[in-house]
Amino acid sequence: MIVFSGDLDKAIASFILANGAAASGKKVTLFFTFWGLNILRKSEKVPVAKTFIGQMFGMMMPRGSRKLSLSRMNMLGMGAKMIRGVMNNNNVSSLEELMASAIHQGVEIVACQMSMDLMGIRQEELIDGVKIGGVGYYLGKADQSGINLFI
Amino acid sequence: MIVFSGDLDKAIASFILANGAAASGKKVTLFFTFWGLNILRKSEKVPVAKTFIGQMFGMMMPRGSRKLSLSRMNMLGMGAKMIRGVMNNNNVSSLEELMASAIHQGVEIVACQMSMDLMGIRQEELIDGVKIGGVGYYLGKADQSGINLFI
Amino acid sequence: MIVFSGDLDKAIASFILANGAAASGKKVTLFFTFWGLNILRKSEKVPVAKTFIGQMFGMMMPRGSRKLSLSRMNMLGMGAKMIRGVMNNNNVSSLEELMASAIHQGVEIVACQMSMDLMGIRQEELIDGVKIGGVGYYLGKADQSGINLFI
Repeated sequence: MIVFSGDLDKAIASFILANGAAASGKKVTLFFTFWGLNILRKSEKVPVAKTFIGQMFGMMMPRGSRKLSLSRMNMLGMGAKMIRGVMNNNNVSSLEELMASAIHQGVEIVACQMSMDLMGIRQEELIDGVKIGGVGYYLGKADQSGINLFI
Repeated sequence: MIVFSGDLDKAIASFILANGAAASGKKVTLFFTFWGLNILRKSEKVPVAKTFIGQMFGMMMPRGSRKLSLSRMNMLGMGAKMIRGVMNNNNVSSLEELMASAIHQGVEIVACQMSMDLMGIRQEELIDGVKIGGVGYYLGKADQSGINLFI
Repeated sequence: MIVFSGDLDKAIASFILANGAAASGKKVTLFFTFWGLNILRKSEKVPVAKTFIGQMFGMMMPRGSRKLSLSRMNMLGMGAKMIRGVMNNNNVSSLEELMASAIHQGVEIVACQMSMDLMGIRQEELIDGVKIGGVGYYLGKADQSGINLFI
């Protein structure tokens, strides 16, 4: 799966699919690119040298999974809180638990090299367990895969 | 196909693809999740017991295919009317006709169990002919399918 | 790949994937539909007879790749300029170069017949090298393809 979007709802969908597929014995690779990279950012600021543009991107984009917005009905974050609330009430794992579980189940988490360069994001700013790869790496994996999605 | 989006334009695209594929003899499954569920809602209010959050979701989200907005250029519904107008002028079936035709052609319409639970939507509120299934059901179908899309 | 979206960021992603796949020897077809058609429009106005609705669509939608907006953080075009700037600074080809390179590499660029009819867009208004095809054409190509994406 390519995770292009950085919306909370699509991030949840990606990890539910990834966990489901991994649980049924499939090998899963998630390739995070563009806004999707934000899902993988650590929530704390990591001191790394950046260009001016890199600093601007870093400041303006959500830092990590807890800061993501819904693709619609976000209502200044209230919608995101509502979704997190109903997930909790229905005993659905939170996005952060889904991410930990995916990594634990061996889902491969790959960050797009080129997007990182463009947005000035360094590996140290991403959560642990993330690999870095390019479009060639994605295509190689996609070629071996029975189900390919762009999210 | 996973239909995650509840936008009018993407709903139309989903059903045109589904009808085209079914017409050429393929077995098609559409799996509606998150905002996509709104496409399947009946246009009239159905009296069912709901939690407070379920009532809020029910009220704030569009009830059925006729209430959907465009993903862009919606302009308070004028864009949606324009698209419906040009479809009519060009003798393209309306979304509602495309949906009826898909069901008639045997396209399988599946609503995501977990999304229904989260948003408090009950089967009685969905149009007739909809199956309920989970992510496992989707993965089983996707595995047998030559073309998988996330819309 | 179906390119449904007319966002600058998704257009760039589509053509990076297409060029990467073509470079590794794969046959690639990009099928542009709905807002994606705008990516293929010539930047200059082409004098063709249009209905009133066709004129409105033509005026309100971005004319060609240089007018596209980002799917988020567009900020009245400043975000789009920022992305183009960092691509240039990082020696990544511009969208227009990626498009030329894709065509040069033999990537098949197909415009959706039905969307063109609905939005009143004529072949003369599209860049050179674009084929016209319907949903049946797409399905035929997708069927032979190992990787299918909806962007």
